[in-house]
Amino acid sequence: MFTLHPQLENDTVIIADLPLCQVRLMNDANYPWLVLVPRQSGIQEVFELSEDDQLQLNLEVNAVARCLYEGSAADKINIAALGNRVSQLHIHVIARYKTDLAWPNPVWGAHDAAPYTEAEVRLMVDKWQWLLKPFIMT
Amino acid sequence: MFTLHPQLENDTVIIADLPLCQVRLMNDANYPWLVLVPRQSGIQEVFELSEDDQLQLNLEVNAVARCLYEGSAADKINIAALGNRVSQLHIHVIARYKTDLAWPNPVWGAHDAAPYTEAEVRLMVDKWQWLLKPFIMT
Repeated sequence: MFTLHPQLENDTVIIADLPLCQVRLMNDANYPWLVLVPRQSGIQEVFELSEDDQLQLNLEVNAVARCLYEGSAADKINIAALGNRVSQLHIHVIARYKTDLAWPNPVWGAHDAAPYTEAEVRLMVDKWQWLLKPFIMT
Repeated sequence: MFTLHPQLENDTVIIADLPLCQVRLMNDANYPWLVLVPRQSGIQEVFELSEDDQLQLNLEVNAVARCLYEGSAADKINIAALGNRVSQLHIHVIARYKTDLAWPNPVWGAHDAAPYTEAEVRLMVDKWQWLLKPFIMT
């Protein structure tokens, strides 16, 4: 059964379910930042997924990356599966700007998160639900 | 025509060509660290590749990741496409240990690279050529 790691539960907000992954918003207004979590249990590395699921993960990550790129008018997309602190497999997809706080460094550990207000969270969730609509399970 | 970015040329050493990507060794003895560079020109984001090449990239990244995980007895694999400094698409695949210098932080910017000796480079290239043999173009 799929259970979300408490740290991911704490740091992110659900946007939608794609066929394999839950897409979540990182609660950090410093960067447009989405996180994909395959709804499976006990998976830490991408290659531990079945071959079909590896393919599906790739489709979902690349679709979300393109959507984030276009929907944020970003300069660059950063994609990463790290998992050193939270071992449950999750993939970061982050829109980067040459003017953002951490540029050109990676975002992790660069600055404290700047949480959205509740109203901003609702706006962001609406925005990404709308833009990800073609991929969302109904 | 495929040309490698001078920074990647400087920081890494060629190991082998897979069908889509050149696999290179990061010249940093702090971590077993491979880099995959699709042999294409003008590509910065994974979703700019053709759909077939996105699929092939996924196969090669996951194969290299599994190979690195098993061949290094790593605790965790980090996979990332960042490209903030070097925009040519390249994917980092890094073996991480709970005892390594940067753990649990990401490796980028954490410590200066510790270049291998020439003999060590040859040993590492031989090792990864051997382990990646099933995937290498002949």
